[in-house]
Parts: sequence; structure tokens; C-alpha cells
Amino acid sequence: MKTVTIGIIGAGRIGKVHAENIAKFVPEMEIKTIADPYMSEETVEFLRRLRIPHIESDPELILNDPEIRAVVVCSPTDLHAEYAIRAARAGKDVFVEKPIDYRIDRVREVIAAAREAGVRLQVGFNRRFDHDHRAVYEAVRAGKIGDVNLVKISSRDPAPPTIDYVKVSGGIFYDMMVHDFDMARFLAGSEVTEVFAYGAVLVDPAIGEAGDVDTAVVTLKFANGAMGVIDNSRRAVYGYDQRVEVFGSKGAVMDSNDTPHNAVLHGEDGSLTSPCYKIMWDRYTMAFAAEQQAFANAILRGEPTQVMGEDGLYPILIAAAATKSMKEGRPVKLSEIQ
Amino acid sequence: MKTVTIGIIGAGRIGKVHAENIAKFVPEMEIKTIADPYMSEETVEFLRRLRIPHIESDPELILNDPEIRAVVVCSPTDLHAEYAIRAARAGKDVFVEKPIDYRIDRVREVIAAAREAGVRLQVGFNRRFDHDHRAVYEAVRAGKIGDVNLVKISSRDPAPPTIDYVKVSGGIFYDMMVHDFDMARFLAGSEVTEVFAYGAVLVDPAIGEAGDVDTAVVTLKFANGAMGVIDNSRRAVYGYDQRVEVFGSKGAVMDSNDTPHNAVLHGEDGSLTSPCYKIMWDRYTMAFAAEQQAFANAILRGEPTQVMGEDGLYPILIAAAATKSMKEGRPVKLSEIQ
Amino acid sequence: MKTVTIGIIGAGRIGKVHAENIAKFVPEMEIKTIADPYMSEETVEFLRRLRIPHIESDPELILNDPEIRAVVVCSPTDLHAEYAIRAARAGKDVFVEKPIDYRIDRVREVIAAAREAGVRLQVGFNRRFDHDHRAVYEAVRAGKIGDVNLVKISSRDPAPPTIDYVKVSGGIFYDMMVHDFDMARFLAGSEVTEVFAYGAVLVDPAIGEAGDVDTAVVTLKFANGAMGVIDNSRRAVYGYDQRVEVFGSKGAVMDSNDTPHNAVLHGEDGSLTSPCYKIMWDRYTMAFAAEQQAFANAILRGEPTQVMGEDGLYPILIAAAATKSMKEGRPVKLSEIQ
Amino acid sequence: MKTVTIGIIGAGRIGKVHAENIAKFVPEMEIKTIADPYMSEETVEFLRRLRIPHIESDPELILNDPEIRAVVVCSPTDLHAEYAIRAARAGKDVFVEKPIDYRIDRVREVIAAAREAGVRLQVGFNRRFDHDHRAVYEAVRAGKIGDVNLVKISSRDPAPPTIDYVKVSGGIFYDMMVHDFDMARFLAGSEVTEVFAYGAVLVDPAIGEAGDVDTAVVTLKFANGAMGVIDNSRRAVYGYDQRVEVFGSKGAVMDSNDTPHNAVLHGEDGSLTSPCYKIMWDRYTMAFAAEQQAFANAILRGEPTQVMGEDGLYPILIAAAATKSMKEGRPVKLSEIQ
Repeated sequence: MKTVTIGIIGAGRIGKVHAENIAKFVPEMEIKTIADPYMSEETVEFLRRLRIPHIESDPELILNDPEIRAVVVCSPTDLHAEYAIRAARAGKDVFVEKPIDYRIDRVREVIAAAREAGVRLQVGFNRRFDHDHRAVYEAVRAGKIGDVNLVKISSRDPAPPTIDYVKVSGGIFYDMMVHDFDMARFLAGSEVTEVFAYGAVLVDPAIGEAGDVDTAVVTLKFANGAMGVIDNSRRAVYGYDQRVEVFGSKGAVMDSNDTPHNAVLHGEDGSLTSPCYKIMWDRYTMAFAAEQQAFANAILRGEPTQVMGEDGLYPILIAAAATKSMKEGRPVKLSEIQ
Repeated sequence: MKTVTIGIIGAGRIGKVHAENIAKFVPEMEIKTIADPYMSEETVEFLRRLRIPHIESDPELILNDPEIRAVVVCSPTDLHAEYAIRAARAGKDVFVEKPIDYRIDRVREVIAAAREAGVRLQVGFNRRFDHDHRAVYEAVRAGKIGDVNLVKISSRDPAPPTIDYVKVSGGIFYDMMVHDFDMARFLAGSEVTEVFAYGAVLVDPAIGEAGDVDTAVVTLKFANGAMGVIDNSRRAVYGYDQRVEVFGSKGAVMDSNDTPHNAVLHGEDGSLTSPCYKIMWDRYTMAFAAEQQAFANAILRGEPTQVMGEDGLYPILIAAAATKSMKEGRPVKLSEIQ
Repeated sequence: MKTVTIGIIGAGRIGKVHAENIAKFVPEMEIKTIADPYMSEETVEFLRRLRIPHIESDPELILNDPEIRAVVVCSPTDLHAEYAIRAARAGKDVFVEKPIDYRIDRVREVIAAAREAGVRLQVGFNRRFDHDHRAVYEAVRAGKIGDVNLVKISSRDPAPPTIDYVKVSGGIFYDMMVHDFDMARFLAGSEVTEVFAYGAVLVDPAIGEAGDVDTAVVTLKFANGAMGVIDNSRRAVYGYDQRVEVFGSKGAVMDSNDTPHNAVLHGEDGSLTSPCYKIMWDRYTMAFAAEQQAFANAILRGEPTQVMGEDGLYPILIAAAATKSMKEGRPVKLSEIQ
Repeated sequence: MKTVTIGIIGAGRIGKVHAENIAKFVPEMEIKTIADPYMSEETVEFLRRLRIPHIESDPELILNDPEIRAVVVCSPTDLHAEYAIRAARAGKDVFVEKPIDYRIDRVREVIAAAREAGVRLQVGFNRRFDHDHRAVYEAVRAGKIGDVNLVKISSRDPAPPTIDYVKVSGGIFYDMMVHDFDMARFLAGSEVTEVFAYGAVLVDPAIGEAGDVDTAVVTLKFANGAMGVIDNSRRAVYGYDQRVEVFGSKGAVMDSNDTPHNAVLHGEDGSLTSPCYKIMWDRYTMAFAAEQQAFANAILRGEPTQVMGEDGLYPILIAAAATKSMKEGRPVKLSEIQ
């Protein structure tokens, strides 16, 4: 089997997720090196058990290694762009975690760097590779629902992040709904042209004091005439709630939440099923694996990636428009942002 | 609209169910008379509200009324055969509640009487007209699952009848599973040739002391090679549990339990749906109406009924075989009974 | 049993629905008279079969009949207010079909007339009495999901009305979404304070030429801080699609579409269930019956009705705000309308 | 992390499944050696990618290696017992694939050998570790359905094995239903005391010519008074169909089939969901991993295994009784076999 030798920059939460999934599920990838200047002993031990041969503190060892063909950038967000650009300039295909950057110009620089270097760029919108959302996407693309009229997305997290995180997150539209903006474009097969956002603080007043909202409903207009609506909440006590629905001229297709098992208990008070998954890593493990598999396949087959640089840019533009809409209390056209 | 003028003999529980359903849902039937020698004031009042013009104590007023074209026999079980035979001899089409009789010879007399008189005979196996079971039946008959390999039926009542009733009921196979024997023939499209029955007393020891079982599993062989299995319990705390499944060479079709509503409550402990119906009358109201509608249609269109005399006979034969099988601890062929 | 003697004004489509449902399902109501100046022979025959004693052309025979305690107004929409006011002034309790009127002042006059006459007024928002939506409502009111954060409503009709109807309908917000505005208030337990509406012509260009849209997404703000979102389409090929979802601090509750049966066919290509109901009358029969039952109970028990005059007013105000929002491309406060 | 060093004897289909699952999902196990005298180049390559250090042809290298603490026996069935006994005598904990042997005496020798050597013995009934069946089991054990009255198991394979395989398989009860016999004991929490079996050839006449049946329904009596019923078919066109249901005095718990995704397509003809998995490896991957994880945990924690030697013996006894029952056309007590 042909394999791609890769390096991973960053061994934080998401870096470890990718390292583990690649090691377990992506035989076409060979992790030669993972580098992070701040690794605990537990992290080193964890990476050793994955049999990664080089566990280093200096990312330069990846960027300068001619054997490494592709780089997976899992650094802190504010360094995403820098490492992506440097990896591209070193001639390596680049997978970069989302968001590429909160600054639109910086995102454009990354896209430009990859284009100039002639390397692949894939952005970490893993939900596109989730088995359920993917099946919805494929039904839409196969024409099973005809022309798309409406895209509906619910996305609710089990519990809010820490207030410290909220303060640096860029706000709910950049941090959380950005995934749904990507999903909306993906499912609609068209670009968003206008956005209207309502937000509220219903979960925790401290989130409001930090300048953010914790509940939001955003409506979208797409270039193809379709409409969209996304709702987000930072707290769903019943677990990770993520459902999509696409309605069209010939039907509708929708998914529901995965659960740890499908046993149903029938009792006097009704029939009880399992709660949803309570954490994202359980819900999306295989989606993280599938996005790396797709990255490997793109490289080995000489094809473009499935989530290209522009796919990293548009959700940021929409997030900017939504933020502006909520602040100004009016619909905002994407052309006002670009 | 053409209508059929009918009389109802018997105003007990099931007689009132038919009277009400015909009055509400079967415009093609006109109830002229209902007769029962033992009616409470509440019953009379109930029937009056249904605007039945003649509420009488003497069934002769129905049997001798030349305006009455069809008779619905809802008398106590031990009089079913007598009234059915007399109504047939009076030239009236006959709907008779199940079981026609526990004595096989007596059932044959009813069938013969109807044949000689040239009148229609319909037996009250209402579940054939239930929307869910009917949809399963229609999928099977339309060939959607190919050749039938296996019929599975679960049938569990919310609570056992009184011990007094158990003592005169003829036993679980005659009283309860007889519905499922009918359903099995209906779904398999073939006659049962052999039966093996296991029974147990797991719900209430008093049922065992009364000489019956309260839990039973019966396996069946059909003439077409298919097999069947039926389980019965006299108590399901979660409500009326009735499901059928037919498995064949090209697929399977199955139904589930109707519930009062389909709202789902998602909470920390899981997702909770409504309990099933807790009483048969809620579950099967429309099936009772539909069987009378079918009886009316058969008369008005000059067609045979959908549940003919033989359909009343075979389940009794199977019940006899099952009873014998359980007693003797061996499979029993239907030919041993006939 | 105590009963309420009623008269029905109007024997068009909805008048016949109410007459039939009351006759079949509401023993507490006695229809003495139904009056409509334009009845076909089929209509008269239909009403006769329901055993309604007086089938008249002149509504005055109802308004002036001292035996008639309550009036069900099913006239053409532009006469709703007039008949409701006259019935109230005649001292009769009034059930009036929705919308009371498209003109806000006229709605207020009806409310005032009922108040001055001291009679009950119930508005025909039948979906509040649907078993599924009701179960969602009851879970919310029982506190099972804690504080309401978000109300989501999908409402899609199988096929658009005629263009002639569209032209006089007042537009999608008055004609179709008005039901959902009522449902949103009902489920949120709070008044709408602000509305933002997107609309599009995606189903039939002729609807656009008639000055209306056929697809719409409306977001709502409620006084209690919750948000709402409603989507409407004039065409869903898979049938009548009506689902509600309420999300709150302790959970979520949602319903799904009723179907004619629950049989599932498992084949090589997947598992196929029944389509949804294709027409409203099948879907909501029992809801129409239940709203009349509730009207009868309110009268007999001396209680207020469950859908009072103000409940008829607010959805019209919201429809006005949504229409204005779509036209002006900005969120509109309800206070701008009042 | 503490780990167990293991060797795998046999690199056929199931040996590779275990090797891959252990390598990916069981960090507590270290595969030192896998040995099989007949390995293709593809197999060697596959095992190399799993980074197994020693890929050998001679199983003695495992049995004689003092560093190896536990052995996973995946040899051809007729060598299961021999390798299990030798591994036990070498002082190693033993995981042995099912069936241990078709000969009851031989199974007893394996159990005795493990007991004498004081080593653990785990039998490969992987379905006990499936997430859905496990959730049913846990609900039963937690008392959520009260006393067990009835266990129902459906188990249908997508397609029959080759006729060559059928001829040496020992018959459907030993080869296929043996899993369900284990599951029945597991769920009932009681031993089977009596069996009645019906079998038929409905899928492929060649199976009948080979002396076997392809469709079977078996009813069971348990020592605790409960009853059971299992149906098997060698062909289900809609995929791998495996469902269990346990009914008791306080409720019922049941599972359904896993599918590759949960997207639902709503169209004119109804709502279509994904087909079930079409092959066992997709359906039960995580169950294979979980049984090895449980084996590792038992060793590391010094606890007994969850599927002990007797658990390997009883299903074989039940298979023998079922085979005898079908042949002789009568119920067979387990005491007749033992």
C-alpha cells in the first residue's frame, strides 16, 4: 500500500485526536513526527503508545524534513496561518485546523501561499465527513430532493466552554456556528449572500458579561435562491444535538442524533431510548478519521482536497456578517464584508 | 347513498362498541333496532344518544323484521351460534362476533346454515382491519417481500381478565391467541398444518389454579412451507403490545404499536416517548369501524365478505391443536383435530 | 348528559367539517340548525345524513333562535366579524373560524362585542388541539424542559392553493403562517415582540406574479427572551409536513408527522415507511373535533375558552409585522403595528 | 499503562479481525507474535502494517514463549481444543474462538485443562459485547423489566455460506444459532432446560440436499420459568438482521439493527432509511474489539473472564438438543443430552 509520510504540528487536544485517529484508522498515512513545545509527560506517553517514531518539541524538524510530504497543523489558532504558510512554502500539502484565522486577510494569505506553492490545502471542517451528514449531502447531490429550497441546521452543545475561553473565542459565530456556516454551504451547494442574526443570553449571564451570546438563530439567503436557518445553543442537557435537514422541490432529507446504543426500554411511563452522546469526541471520532483519510486519498490520487482554502474563508466571512447583523439589528449582505 | 338496514343482537360491551362505531363511522349502515334482554339505564341512555330508533329487549323483533337486511350478533358467546343460525335462516346477512363457538361442530353448523340460506357470514376478527396490520398484509399480498418464510406475532394485554372470566374463557388459546391464529393465517396466506405450544404461569398463580396459563409461545407450520411464531402474555405494564412481522425471500415488513401521540421528550436520562395505548378500545376503535364498513360494502356491492365462516373455523381448530400440544408436550397436526 | 344546542353559520368546506365532527365526536353538542344561502344538493344530502334537524338558507334563523346557545361561524372570511358580532350581541357564545378578519380594527371590534355581551369567544386555531402538538405543549407547561429558549416550527403544505385563492388570501403570512404564529405563542407561553421575515418564490412563479411568496422563514423574539423560527412552504411532495420543537434549559420536546400507518418495509434499498398524510383533513380530523369538544366543555363548565379573542388578534398582528419586515428588509417590532 | 503480551494462533479471517482490532483499539494488549502455517503474502503484508513484531508459521513459538501471557486461538475449528489445552498447560490465559468444539467431551476437556492449570478461559461469543445487545442485557440485569418472562431473538444473515461450508458446518444450530443460544442464556440469566425446533429449507434447495435447513424457529424453556424463541434465516436481502427483545413483569427492552447512517429521505412514496449493514464485520467490529478489551481487563485486574468455559459448553448442548428435536419431531430436555 502506498502511504503518505506526515508530520503533525501541535499535540494539544485536537492534535492528539488526529494523531490517534490517523494511527488507528488511516493506514495510508505514516506519522513520522509530531512536534509541540509544550507536552506533558502523559501526552508523550500517549503518543508513544501510538508508536509515533519522532516526538519532538521543535516544529522546524517537520517543516525542514524532506521526507515529510504533508503537514497537519493543530497549533493554537493564532499560529494556524503561520505554520500553514510555512509548510506550503516548504512544498508540503497542508491540512489546517479550523478556523484558519479570525482575520480575513490572513486567511487569504494562506490560500494565496498554497496556490503559489502549488500544494494542497485542506481545512478541518470534519463534520462534512460525518456519516449521517454525509448521507444527507449525498442524497442532495444525487438530486433526490430536487432543487434545494431550505437548509435547516440545529447545533447545540452539551455545556458552554469556560468564560476564559469565551473571551478569546471570537464569539459564538466564529467559534461555534462557523461549523454550521460551512455545513450550510456544503448542503445548499451555493454561496450565502445575506445573513440575519438574532442572539440572546439564556444559558449563563457571565457569557453576556464577556460580550458574547449563548443562543443564536441565524437566517441565510443563498445565491441559488434557497434559504437557510441555523440555531445554536451553548447548552443542551440531553447531549450533543446536531441535526441537519434539507428541503427541496422533490422531497426532504434529514438526519438525527447518533446515540451510544439503540436499545429501547418500554415501561409504564413510556418508551425510553439512550441519551445522545454527551461529548463531541464520541460523536465525531469517525468523522475526524474520515477527513484525514480523504486528505490522504487526495494526495495519493493527485486530486484536489474536498475542503479547500475557500471553504475555510467563506464561513469566516459569514461569521463576520452575522456578528455585524446582530450588532446592527439588520440583515447584512456578504458583499458588505468582502 | 344506498344503506343497509341492520339490527344488533346484544348490547353488552362489544355490542355497544359496534353500535357506536356504526353510528359514527358507517354511513352506509342504518341501525334500526338493537335488542338485549338485560340493559341498564345507562346503556339505554347511551344507545338513545346514538339515535337508534328501536331499543328493545326481545331479539325476535330483529329476527322477524323483514326491513332488517343484516344482523350483527353480539350476544354472550354461548348464544353466538344460535342467533347466527336463526338470522341466516331468516334470510339475513350475518356478522357474528368471535369466537363463533368453542365447539367445532357448532361452528360448522353455523357455516352450513349460512351456506344453505345463501346469506353472507362475516366473523368479527377486527384486527384484520387495523390500519397497521392491514398495511403489513397489503405489502405481503403485493409481493413486496416475495415468498413468505416466517410470520411473527407478539400479542400482550395490559392486564389479565378476572379469574372468573378466565375460568369460562376456554383458555388462553381460545380466548386470546385465537386472534393471532387468525392473523397468522391472514398474513401467511396459507393454512396451519402443525402446532407446538409452550405455556407457563408467570403473571398470576391464580390463573394457573384456574387451569390456564398466562404466558404462551406457539410455533406453527404452514402448508406453504412457511413457519410462524406467536407469543402471548396476559400482562404488559407498558400497555397494549401488538406487533406483527412477516419475513420473506425479498424482504420483511413489520409494524409497531400505536401510541396516543408521537411527541418525544429529550432529557438527561434519554428520550422518552408516549406509552402505548392501555386499553384495546382505544387501540382498535377504527378497526372495529372498518370491519363494519367492509361488511356494509360486501352487502351493497354483492360481494363475499372478507372474513368468511371458514375464517371463523380455522382459528378454533388451531386453538384446539395448541391446547392439545401443550397438554401432551408434543407437536400436534391439524389433521388430528379435523 | 347535559348538552349545548348550537347553530352553524356557513356550510362550505370548513362548515361541513365542523358539522360532521360535532355530529360524530361531540355528544355534548346538539346541532339544531345549519344555515347557508348557497348549498348544493350534495351538501344538503350530506347534512341530512348527519341528522341535523334544520338545514336552512337564512342565518337569521340561528341568530334569532332563543334555543340556540352557541354559534359556530364558518362563513366566508369577510363575514366572520359581522356574524360573530351579531351572535355575541344576541347573547350567544361564539366560535369563529380563523382568521377573525385581516383588518386589525375589525378583530378588535369582535373582541369588544364579546366582552360587552359577556359571552364566550373561541377562535378556530384547531392545531392547538392536535394530539401531537398538544403533548408538546403539555410537556412544556409541566416544566419538563425548564425555561423555553427556542421554538421551532416547520409547516409545509403538500401543494399550493389556486392562484385565484392566493390573490385574495392576504399573503402567506396571513393565510398560512398565521397558524404557526398562534402555535409559536402557544408553545412559548409568551408574546412575540419582534419579527424578521425572509420570503422567496421557489415553488411557482405565478405565485410571485400574484404578489406573494411561496416559501418563507421567519425569526421571532419573545417577551420572555426566547427566540423562535418558522419555515413555511406551499409544496412538500411527501405530504403534509408539520412539526414543532421546543428547546429549553432542561431538555427539548418535539413531535413528528402522523402517517396513515406505521408498517415498515425492509428491502435491499433500505427501510420504507408510509408517506405522511397528503391532506389536512386527514391529518387534523381529531383536532377539529377536539376544539369543538373544548368549546362545549367551556360552556357547560362555565369556564373561559382555551383560544380567546386576543389569541385571534395577536397572530394577525404578527402577520402584519412579518409582511412589513419582508417588504422593508428589516426586523419589525410588534409595537410598530399596535 | 500496564499491558498484556499476547500471541495469536491462526491468521485466517477471524484471526486477522482480532489482530486488527487489538492493534487499533486495545492499548492494554501487545501482540508479540502471530503464527499460522498458511499465510498469503497479502496476509503477511496486512499484519506488518499492524506493526506486529513476529509473524511466524509455527504456533510453538507462541506456546513456548515465556514472555507471552495470553493466547488468542483463532485456528481452524477442529484445532481449537488442542491449542486451547496446550496453551492452558503452558500456563497462559486463553481466549478461544467459538465453537470450542462440536464434540461435547472435547469441550469439557478444554474446560478441565484450564481449571487444572488455573488459567483464564474466555470463549469468543462477541455479540455479548455488542453495544446494543449489551444495553439490553444491562437493563435486564438492573431489574428494569422485573422478572424475565420471555426472550425473543431474530438472527438472519444477508446470504447463505457456500454449500461446501454448509456440509462441514455441523448444521445451522451449531454454526449459526449457537450465537443465539448463548445470547438467550445471557439475557435470560438462566439455563435452558428444554428445546423444541422446527426447521425448513426455504432459501436454497442445495442446503437441504447437504442435509441441513436454512430457516429455523426454536422455542426454549429456562430453569427460571421463562420462555424463549429464536428464529434464524440464512438469507435476509435487506442485510444483517439481529434483534433481541426481553419481556418481563415490569416492562420490555429491545434493540434494533444498526445502520451505516441515520439519514431519512422523505419522498412521494414514503420515507426511506438506510439498509442495515450487509456484512457481519461492519456490524460487529466494535464488539470484537470490546471482547478483547474485556479479556485484557480480566487479566490485568485479576478477575474471571465474562464468557467462561461453561458458556462455551452450554450453547453446544443446546445445539445438540435442537438438532435432536428437529430430527425426532418432539421437545428435547437438556438432561437428555448431558
